[in-house]
Amino acid sequence: MSELLQGLSLIGAARGAPGGAGFTGTDPTTGEALTPRYHSASTDELDRAVALAQAAAPVLARSSGAQRGALLRAIAEELEQARADLEALVPRETGLPQARAAGELGRTVGQLRLFAALAEDGSWVDARIDHADPARTPLPKPDVRSLLRPLGPVAVFGASNFPLAFSVAGGDTASALAAGCPVIVKAHPSHPATGERVALAVRAAVARCGLPEGTFSLLFDAGITVGAALVRHPGIRAVGFTGSRAGGRALADLAAARAEPIPVYAEMGSINPVFVLPAAVQARGGEIATQLHASVLQSAGQFCTSPGVIVLPDGDAGDALRDQLVALFAGSTPAPMLNAGIAARYAEGVAALGDVAGVDTLHRNASPPRNAAAALFETDAARFRAEPQLREEVFGPMTLLVRAHDDTDMLALAQSLEGQLTATVIADATDQAQVAPLLDVLADIAGRVLMNGVPTGVEVGPAMVHGGPYPATSDGRSTSVGTAAIERFARRVCFQNLPDALLPEALREANPLGLWRLVDGARVRA
Amino acid sequence: MSELLQGLSLIGAARGAPGGAGFTGTDPTTGEALTPRYHSASTDELDRAVALAQAAAPVLARSSGAQRGALLRAIAEELEQARADLEALVPRETGLPQARAAGELGRTVGQLRLFAALAEDGSWVDARIDHADPARTPLPKPDVRSLLRPLGPVAVFGASNFPLAFSVAGGDTASALAAGCPVIVKAHPSHPATGERVALAVRAAVARCGLPEGTFSLLFDAGITVGAALVRHPGIRAVGFTGSRAGGRALADLAAARAEPIPVYAEMGSINPVFVLPAAVQARGGEIATQLHASVLQSAGQFCTSPGVIVLPDGDAGDALRDQLVALFAGSTPAPMLNAGIAARYAEGVAALGDVAGVDTLHRNASPPRNAAAALFETDAARFRAEPQLREEVFGPMTLLVRAHDDTDMLALAQSLEGQLTATVIADATDQAQVAPLLDVLADIAGRVLMNGVPTGVEVGPAMVHGGPYPATSDGRSTSVGTAAIERFARRVCFQNLPDALLPEALREANPLGLWRLVDGARVRA
Repeated sequence: MSELLQGLSLIGAARGAPGGAGFTGTDPTTGEALTPRYHSASTDELDRAVALAQAAAPVLARSSGAQRGALLRAIAEELEQARADLEALVPRETGLPQARAAGELGRTVGQLRLFAALAEDGSWVDARIDHADPARTPLPKPDVRSLLRPLGPVAVFGASNFPLAFSVAGGDTASALAAGCPVIVKAHPSHPATGERVALAVRAAVARCGLPEGTFSLLFDAGITVGAALVRHPGIRAVGFTGSRAGGRALADLAAARAEPIPVYAEMGSINPVFVLPAAVQARGGEIATQLHASVLQSAGQFCTSPGVIVLPDGDAGDALRDQLVALFAGSTPAPMLNAGIAARYAEGVAALGDVAGVDTLHRNASPPRNAAAALFETDAARFRAEPQLREEVFGPMTLLVRAHDDTDMLALAQSLEGQLTATVIADATDQAQVAPLLDVLADIAGRVLMNGVPTGVEVGPAMVHGGPYPATSDGRSTSVGTAAIERFARRVCFQNLPDALLPEALREANPLGLWRLVDGARVRA
Repeated sequence: MSELLQGLSLIGAARGAPGGAGFTGTDPTTGEALTPRYHSASTDELDRAVALAQAAAPVLARSSGAQRGALLRAIAEELEQARADLEALVPRETGLPQARAAGELGRTVGQLRLFAALAEDGSWVDARIDHADPARTPLPKPDVRSLLRPLGPVAVFGASNFPLAFSVAGGDTASALAAGCPVIVKAHPSHPATGERVALAVRAAVARCGLPEGTFSLLFDAGITVGAALVRHPGIRAVGFTGSRAGGRALADLAAARAEPIPVYAEMGSINPVFVLPAAVQARGGEIATQLHASVLQSAGQFCTSPGVIVLPDGDAGDALRDQLVALFAGSTPAPMLNAGIAARYAEGVAALGDVAGVDTLHRNASPPRNAAAALFETDAARFRAEPQLREEVFGPMTLLVRAHDDTDMLALAQSLEGQLTATVIADATDQAQVAPLLDVLADIAGRVLMNGVPTGVEVGPAMVHGGPYPATSDGRSTSVGTAAIERFARRVCFQNLPDALLPEALREANPLGLWRLVDGARVRA
């Protein structure tokens, strides 16, 4: 593998030059600097990558669903062939266990094949045909047909916490390529070797499929200059991002201030409130405590959907559930975090939370360096509503119990929340009266509303929404997981009175692609 | 009618107070100030309108498609009952002829009924169901279901040039209400009485349907304070706008700078290039000249889709078409413009264009005050590409002929264009070789691509796109005309493992609403 990894950006089929500011990956369990050394892309390299993407864009826009499907399947195959490399690189750069790397690779290739199937099926373009009526008065009705078309070159910023599934060949890249958009990825500096290895797989697939080299590029950067320049570049038409609120908002602000603003789809995390209702607490508090504890601690709490707030009723049953959580947290072992910055921010966040007046620290241990020890806090609903700091995500294995007096208190708390990726209700049949109004409020603030489960674990399928109102994302109308993610990278274009032969195949009268279409307002496939 | 019109904002079922900065409508043909005098909404009135809209939002979000359809049909009926008033008010405030007012009213009620049918059909929510698989390994697959839900209160800014179809009860309002969003309209100050009369019709419909008063409000303002405050208000979740580039961009910038950014759908007009290919010029230059002249002069050129640039080949046939246009323009009569500001900006725009080096004035007359005389200019493709000023819309009955040497010159010109609402190709069968590459480029820059027609006249139907890349709109993924306009005011929300009875009806297993849904990836209605 060492001969594959050069520490240089991939500018289409070429490599960037050494010379830019250097950096390395780090083994988060030891702090050891890893090889190779990575070199930041130059402005010229960035311009070249965008120019190549712009040249590739019309070719990809004209490519068939079969061709896009073949590309995505080839990327999946190349990644599977890189399995041994990736199962070694991911743990080394992220501290995540090898089993997680293997599982995440499976998820990543599954996503690529899901989008391949979507592109091959082709109906996602939502083709619409309104037939002409030359006899209509006072004016003849024209023939009007429309479909979704790719936006053009997309910039993708991967996440630190999913080095495969939300990174170089993750959901943003898969959905953009499926839509027919070239992709330029800004590599996450926390797992550069993983990024480079995945990028080599993507590049090999692009070459195998005979597509233009500008279909895909990968840029390294020690800082934030390259990413900012990419979002500002006039050739970039949309941005996908997974990461912090500060990072996502900064990119959204840059994009909105362009001469020609572009959409930014930033998934920025949330506190993912869980509401445990009285009858459920009463009936199965112990089971609920075990589930929630596991969800909070999974992957050291380094999930966008980790439950950061658990709302529990006052009273003895709530106290018992809390005490069970305290015991479980006390028995947990510290785990390495993805990088030193995340570990430091977690330590700061936990310390700050413990200092908030009215917040009790139920469990908190010192962590070994680079590790995170689970932490558990408690406050009441009135305090939670009054203190904005309590609504901020602390990324890591912690949660805040919020005690509510009654239904009204719980509902008021739900109404006070900002936008969330997820909101969960844990309830029993006898909680029924309380559940419906709570679900109503949660559907207004969250992208995904769950019952009797935990928010961690995001299923990849047509119905999934991994999004939610600001500040969970920068664009609450979008999802970054599931097939609806493709809609982020397309726009509807309509054609009026074009001869059949000049129409895109998806819009031709005979429906040669066999798509589901909306013809004169009716959904048909004939 | 005079007793109906009070010159005061409609804050739900109540009226604003007099006292704010005053203004009046003006008869654009005479400059005469009209009655009644209008009073700007106060900050308190704005806050009240938003609070009422926020209170109405959950009720509308829960309303059935049948209820939304009934509201939209009731608005259409109320507008038809106001026909005599509107056919008197519109010409008086806008200078548009009564026949145009009648036609635009027909279009407006037609749009309302189209969105009523869309809401009643209900399939627009794009319901998706991914069934559970409890036996899946390593983890059971959850039940995941999603649909589009309304965003909440929407602010609408109507256009001066469509006092009915793109104003108080126009496409933005119809699509937002159909989605289940309350609407607050900032009345256009150029036709306040028309706005007030339409708002009374909407309010009557809201009351008839037993919906909360906050479903609809109308705010007057002499200046831009109320509009800016509305876009900044935390209770507003999205903005629809039709107007100038400066106005649309200003609102988009305000919305992007909010603590919680919101989407702005601003349709800002464009120059709508028309490419006339050599064989078509040769075969039917006279007919083309007549069509284009009529399109440029329709409603004094006061359409977002008015053809502001006509690309013609060099040579004798192109010269002949040009000369025919010159003769037609010379024979046209000045027409009143919508208001004094628009007339003044037209006069300035025409004067400035005549002063650009390399631009020849082919026809230009002085206009009587408040009127616009048609103007015709000519330049070559190289000059057009080099001079950014020539790409700016001059709103009114003018067009710029751009002469191209050959196919390559024409294609290069197309590639140099900014985002457009429309782009038109006029071609004959023997132009075929040139057409396909040109269409490819135009589909990248325009919302609607036409052949052998004129861009004025926007059909309202499921396939229509009245949108296009920036600067034609602030959000190139959207359309403000046609049923796809509803998608602007909704976001996808997903529900995981909810019991059937707690799901929205659209997602229940038995499909009680009979919707087209995506079930386990397949489009079905069963």
